[in-house]
Amino acid sequence: MVELPSDCGFGFGLFTDLYELTMAQAYIEDGMTGESVFSLYVRNLPEKRKYLLAAGLDSVLEYLQSLRFTEEDLEYLDTTGLFCPSFLDWLRSFEFAGDVYAVPEGTPIFAGEPILEVVAPLPQAQLIETFVLNQVHVQTLLASKASRIVTAAAGRKVVDFSSRRTHGTDAALKAARAFYLAGVSATSNVLAGKIYGIPISGTMAHSYIQAHDSEEAAFRAFTAIYPETVLLVDTYETIKGVSRVISLARELGEDFRVKAIRLDSGDISSLSMEARRMLDDAGLEGVEILASGGLDEDRIVELLSSGARLDGFGVGTRMGVSSDAPDLDIVFKLCQYDGMGKVKLSAGKPILPGRKQVFRGFREGRASGDIIARDSENLPGRPLLEPVMRKGVPLGPGAKSLDELREYASGELAALPDSVSSLSPEEHSYPVDVSQALLNFQEKVSLQVDS
Amino acid sequence: MVELPSDCGFGFGLFTDLYELTMAQAYIEDGMTGESVFSLYVRNLPEKRKYLLAAGLDSVLEYLQSLRFTEEDLEYLDTTGLFCPSFLDWLRSFEFAGDVYAVPEGTPIFAGEPILEVVAPLPQAQLIETFVLNQVHVQTLLASKASRIVTAAAGRKVVDFSSRRTHGTDAALKAARAFYLAGVSATSNVLAGKIYGIPISGTMAHSYIQAHDSEEAAFRAFTAIYPETVLLVDTYETIKGVSRVISLARELGEDFRVKAIRLDSGDISSLSMEARRMLDDAGLEGVEILASGGLDEDRIVELLSSGARLDGFGVGTRMGVSSDAPDLDIVFKLCQYDGMGKVKLSAGKPILPGRKQVFRGFREGRASGDIIARDSENLPGRPLLEPVMRKGVPLGPGAKSLDELREYASGELAALPDSVSSLSPEEHSYPVDVSQALLNFQEKVSLQVDS
Repeated sequence: MVELPSDCGFGFGLFTDLYELTMAQAYIEDGMTGESVFSLYVRNLPEKRKYLLAAGLDSVLEYLQSLRFTEEDLEYLDTTGLFCPSFLDWLRSFEFAGDVYAVPEGTPIFAGEPILEVVAPLPQAQLIETFVLNQVHVQTLLASKASRIVTAAAGRKVVDFSSRRTHGTDAALKAARAFYLAGVSATSNVLAGKIYGIPISGTMAHSYIQAHDSEEAAFRAFTAIYPETVLLVDTYETIKGVSRVISLARELGEDFRVKAIRLDSGDISSLSMEARRMLDDAGLEGVEILASGGLDEDRIVELLSSGARLDGFGVGTRMGVSSDAPDLDIVFKLCQYDGMGKVKLSAGKPILPGRKQVFRGFREGRASGDIIARDSENLPGRPLLEPVMRKGVPLGPGAKSLDELREYASGELAALPDSVSSLSPEEHSYPVDVSQALLNFQEKVSLQVDS
Repeated sequence: MVELPSDCGFGFGLFTDLYELTMAQAYIEDGMTGESVFSLYVRNLPEKRKYLLAAGLDSVLEYLQSLRFTEEDLEYLDTTGLFCPSFLDWLRSFEFAGDVYAVPEGTPIFAGEPILEVVAPLPQAQLIETFVLNQVHVQTLLASKASRIVTAAAGRKVVDFSSRRTHGTDAALKAARAFYLAGVSATSNVLAGKIYGIPISGTMAHSYIQAHDSEEAAFRAFTAIYPETVLLVDTYETIKGVSRVISLARELGEDFRVKAIRLDSGDISSLSMEARRMLDDAGLEGVEILASGGLDEDRIVELLSSGARLDGFGVGTRMGVSSDAPDLDIVFKLCQYDGMGKVKLSAGKPILPGRKQVFRGFREGRASGDIIARDSENLPGRPLLEPVMRKGVPLGPGAKSLDELREYASGELAALPDSVSSLSPEEHSYPVDVSQALLNFQEKVSLQVDS
């Protein structure tokens, strides 16, 4: 795990909703510091998602390890008049001491399935809710979107161009990592490359072409410095731009090593076909054609099925904000306190009580269905939740590298039934059941509630 | 301006797209370090937005002042094999030395109008593109969404509950500030309260109720510590929850000082009417009713027009991700280099060349139309762009506090024609013209392009 400037270190203790702090104080004053279990899951999937790709655990573990309150934080809290000295002292010596169980990053998950469960003294578990939800939400959201785009690209490279329009800097960095986890090849964000060791990639911008006296001069100048670059050909007139690339190839002969051209506007499909023909006719079969500009999985499928001749995609905004589904119905719910299962009876928002496990069944190497069960059950199938932190200490030895997680995600996605992993809008039939023992327990707890 | 852990300090030099760095090196190698002008604007507004509320300038100025490259950054860049020692030296001594002109935060703006313009040596201006777009994008996006929600609430308080589902931590903090700028009353995010001096607010969560043996016990315990709190009444059965609040009031008599109850699920409209009746009948006219759960401007209008008896709203996800329009078509475009106006001819993506000014006309105190002009023009109306940074130094003396900007935004929004500021979906007719001189200049520059 890497220290990020954006969410670790000084002062992130206060990245929490005020009520987490007031509730924590109330718990402590009333002696309610017993062990609690909170479960983090997505209640319902967005209409256009058939699965989610779990991500964000790394940030959660990093946060839980480094979470502290500074004197400056405590001084600020004191100014609110809401907190008593003994609670501020409790914060002063705060160190997260709970256990965490989670599905590995890159695991496909479904509605209602715990992504992680926290077992910790009640005030501690309450306090971490806001950050933990924030990070698992954005990273799972973006990994899930990217997974669809990678599927649409059908083996062609997808490069993340989204940093300029993600929601803030933290999202840009986490996006780059989540996209890579989901199968994206590279990011344009240099800081993400540095922090996460992800491949970085870039072409050239319209401003570079415009700044020169002519497109020709710009192409010549850029290839002189970066012989193996990608040339952007649509600043003025795309087909003329392609001709200029071909002229440059003639001029440079053996020294011409341009890898690709990029189309960013106009009728990308027909322009790609014409550009391919022109390049091939000039003996430049090796020069690839990349597309960018408002791409997402639907647009990529549309382009490819129209016969567009494209070798890769630069995908920005629509992946970077998950534009068709920019949020998930994700929650962090108390499901046990002091050994007692807990539920809610609010309309349409049920809770499965107690610690849980998800068992994923497989038939002939393909996932055949999940069962959400009590953690004490031992059902057929692979258990998805693993212990990842014990008494505040990450269980490091088993930790996988980002590349290993990416490999794992790819394998897990390939093991989903085609009806689930495909982009087709049809209803899929992936079964997610709740075990009889868990249903019985839920009923028992619900009946005990003094509602 | 405040030092944020999230986007200042160490290592944010590399928060940029790779091509900004490769282009900067190419400019320097070719001696293209002359003065450039880049203009930042939104090409087209999302369908459901009739205006945008500009925000993010504070973060931009903070970034430009503090932008440096560390030795660690340079070592990383060196490993890519793309950069020569003289360029790394240039980065080592980098200090932004340009001028910035911008509309004040809180200014309503329209498609095509520059939000800010940067005048700086070409490689410098190129390098800052990614971060500057990222910040103005997210903050303008979220301020604009919040402005609609504040309008819908029609004078009732709106509180930001979005931190758990914004895209990352930076977005959560910037959101809280942007929302406050747009008229939201408070945020639940304690760190945002500390950093920006925004009022913080919070109620209680379902987990608090669940953790206790009964709802009654939870209400009693919480009000014992926080007498003026807000009680959440829907954990088990809303109307029973309201009865318990009333019982508690009878029990506590004079000591009962609960400010409000919160409804978070079910048929909020009818529940609010019944709760109001019950509270009033019990002589608790002073206890307010707040709503939360999946709210946005449409839902708030729907609730209020159905006769819901609500005094305030806790708004989360849909405001926090601007769910109906989660991105803006925002760009940062070269429009002048070395004294020459610059354009693009790409399909559907025109650029207005040169430095510009926006003149906003007023009739009887209401905005009557804008003209985008060359900066050398002196047209009727109030010029919106002001100098905010000179040679890398913010023009501090004129800088307004966040509360002053909030006041300014409120006044500017009130001065918009009702057809523009209202939530009605009709087409509005706010005129934004381009001056004849600017059109002539654009045509002249376009003809000169060697396309």
